[in-house]
Amino acid sequence: MPQKARTGRPDNTALGDEIVGRINELGGISETPEHLARFFLTREHRTAADLILTWMRSAGMHAHLDAIGNVCGRYEGERPVLPCLMLGSHYDTVRDAGRWDGPLGLITAISCVADLHKRGRRLPFAIEVVGFADEEGVRFASTLLGSRAVAGTFDASVLNARDNTGLAMRDALVQFGLDPEHIGAAARIRRELHGYIELHIEQGPVLETEQLPVGVVTAISGATRLAASLTGMAGHAGTVPMRLRRDALAGAAECISVIEELCRTDTDGLVGTVGYIHARPGATNVIPGQVSFTIDLRAATDSHRTRATADIVRHIEAVAKRRKLVLQVDVTHENRTVPCAPWLKAQVAEAIAAEGYRVFELPSGAGHDGMAMIDIADVGMMFVRCRGGISHHPDEHVDKADADVGARVLLRFIENFRPRSAESADV
Amino acid sequence: MPQKARTGRPDNTALGDEIVGRINELGGISETPEHLARFFLTREHRTAADLILTWMRSAGMHAHLDAIGNVCGRYEGERPVLPCLMLGSHYDTVRDAGRWDGPLGLITAISCVADLHKRGRRLPFAIEVVGFADEEGVRFASTLLGSRAVAGTFDASVLNARDNTGLAMRDALVQFGLDPEHIGAAARIRRELHGYIELHIEQGPVLETEQLPVGVVTAISGATRLAASLTGMAGHAGTVPMRLRRDALAGAAECISVIEELCRTDTDGLVGTVGYIHARPGATNVIPGQVSFTIDLRAATDSHRTRATADIVRHIEAVAKRRKLVLQVDVTHENRTVPCAPWLKAQVAEAIAAEGYRVFELPSGAGHDGMAMIDIADVGMMFVRCRGGISHHPDEHVDKADADVGARVLLRFIENFRPRSAESADV
Repeated sequence: MPQKARTGRPDNTALGDEIVGRINELGGISETPEHLARFFLTREHRTAADLILTWMRSAGMHAHLDAIGNVCGRYEGERPVLPCLMLGSHYDTVRDAGRWDGPLGLITAISCVADLHKRGRRLPFAIEVVGFADEEGVRFASTLLGSRAVAGTFDASVLNARDNTGLAMRDALVQFGLDPEHIGAAARIRRELHGYIELHIEQGPVLETEQLPVGVVTAISGATRLAASLTGMAGHAGTVPMRLRRDALAGAAECISVIEELCRTDTDGLVGTVGYIHARPGATNVIPGQVSFTIDLRAATDSHRTRATADIVRHIEAVAKRRKLVLQVDVTHENRTVPCAPWLKAQVAEAIAAEGYRVFELPSGAGHDGMAMIDIADVGMMFVRCRGGISHHPDEHVDKADADVGARVLLRFIENFRPRSAESADV
Repeated sequence: MPQKARTGRPDNTALGDEIVGRINELGGISETPEHLARFFLTREHRTAADLILTWMRSAGMHAHLDAIGNVCGRYEGERPVLPCLMLGSHYDTVRDAGRWDGPLGLITAISCVADLHKRGRRLPFAIEVVGFADEEGVRFASTLLGSRAVAGTFDASVLNARDNTGLAMRDALVQFGLDPEHIGAAARIRRELHGYIELHIEQGPVLETEQLPVGVVTAISGATRLAASLTGMAGHAGTVPMRLRRDALAGAAECISVIEELCRTDTDGLVGTVGYIHARPGATNVIPGQVSFTIDLRAATDSHRTRATADIVRHIEAVAKRRKLVLQVDVTHENRTVPCAPWLKAQVAEAIAAEGYRVFELPSGAGHDGMAMIDIADVGMMFVRCRGGISHHPDEHVDKADADVGARVLLRFIENFRPRSAESADV
């Protein structure tokens, strides 16, 4: 096990015990017992929501299911109707998922509130905890449905999206007992929120490499996805000499190496991935005449990603030209970077340091509900180490001790939270 | 049009006219009218065989269908029972084939015999022309069935192979009117043959690049096929920094570039092709954890191919090691090189030169019936230029003028043929 860079502090895993117990309880609610799958507007969604509402109520919160199926709990502050610090994460999953992606943040937030409630502690602001009903977007191929409803940016056209049985989201909502016409009622407005904070598993190996249980997120990296194709000339693997070939796969291989090299030598965290490739005709003894592949590029700022994208396209254009291949590149997807608010980052960092850990900042390469919440609130995030960086997989795992550290940091952050209005303007 | 390196000789395309007419007539015999497909033991096989037998007989040959469905014609020499010079090629096709691959060699041989017959010319040896029933191996996924039967190397176990309707070859033979127990009757023995000569389209772009209508084949290149897989670690495209990745596709890309470079810089005609690749899980936003790909290597000698294979494996092992990927490489297929007999090459070259063309030698990267015939005869081959090097495709094309040159060269070769026994021993 990596050594923790901690100062001598007694190991108290009371919060960790509760969190891991609830992770396992929620993780048992699945479409099939062998492979965790909990999708939007299903029976498992309902069962999970009922369980979470119970936890929220026992933590002293008023709790309800909102118009899109989010679970919402409110722990009042020192007096009623105060703006809230909103905590949250999602409780839907991918198919064959791990138990931690989403639920850790939601369950930890509830445990923190429960701890305040147990001590009778009221703060000069309310706390709200939201469990978002659909972040992964598996069932209707549209992500962030829960947080977009809360942010008031839910796009009504997705109500027509259909699942793989052909059922429209609109009808699935009705069957679930919700009114598609009332989704607007889930929307919150900026002045009701001091900010939105999400604790989440890292889903990457950086904290593990750094031997740290928690980290401060700097931004949710924007992403650009490109679809590229190279067209050369198919031919018999035995009859066309090397010098006469226009091999689309040899060209794609050079492009992949160029992309890797440009990202690897970038000093500012640029990541580039070719995740999909298809060579046609795809026979052992035929030179590929056409290759399609995808490029996924992410960086901590939009300007950096935009520059890098142009740079990569320029390089692969040169490869194609030299090899007499026809290149087609299209942008298929673009997400802007969501920076975490400096004043929230500073308070998360303060809580981490106070718990005795080295403060370490890292970007989030994965998307999160903060991408929607940014439209109505400043966003902060903290990551908890996960084993091997593995996520979206049954092997996804967080040590109980790390879950506990995450909870103690979040609790300390909440108890010491100063709304931005109380901070100096230059933070 | 490329200029021919010819001496002033009148353009006589009488043979070319007949050959192109018959290519088109045979090319019309197809499973479907739009896409040429003529497979072993089908109705089209029967129709084509009947047509070819007619051509053979009108060329003065005794002709019959043998025990595997080959069409066999014999033009007697100056007296009966002389050993023969055997000419041949196949008349089955791939799916969505061109009209020239196989039929050109068979039809040209018949036209040459017809020319001798018309002139009443008898030679001091017999001529046999064989149209092999299955070289491509589409229907039963086993190649060279016709020539293996003639060479006496037909493997009886392939009688159990089934086509995609589940019909066993054994039963297909019976339905066609042949007796699977009598395939041995198709076999010939060495002393009946002076040699085996095949004219075939090049199926590559070398003669076109050299601006030559015909070339002398040095060898049918052996081939080694490898199945390689690289296993790294899948991960989220956004959350794993470049330095912590074990990206199997980035590794495969480097291997593909290494293979291309080693072949490109080889000075002895080595060709290497990665024709198939599959990256898993294959999602835009997931770092590939596992990649499978094939490697096809061919060279004009077995020793060169064997050395090159070892060299390539060593290089990709080094790539895998440096990238912390697990490499698995298996040989899935190996064909030995079939060298063309020097004495036959010399006589083909003589005929080409006598027809006024520059003698140019090239290996055959594709497989041919000579690979089976080598077991009972010395083998020679000549190639005819095909447009763009395109083969196994409806666009496969040979200019009539080139078909005519091929026929005149073959006819001259036949008329001047000296059996090896008549050659000096050191040739």
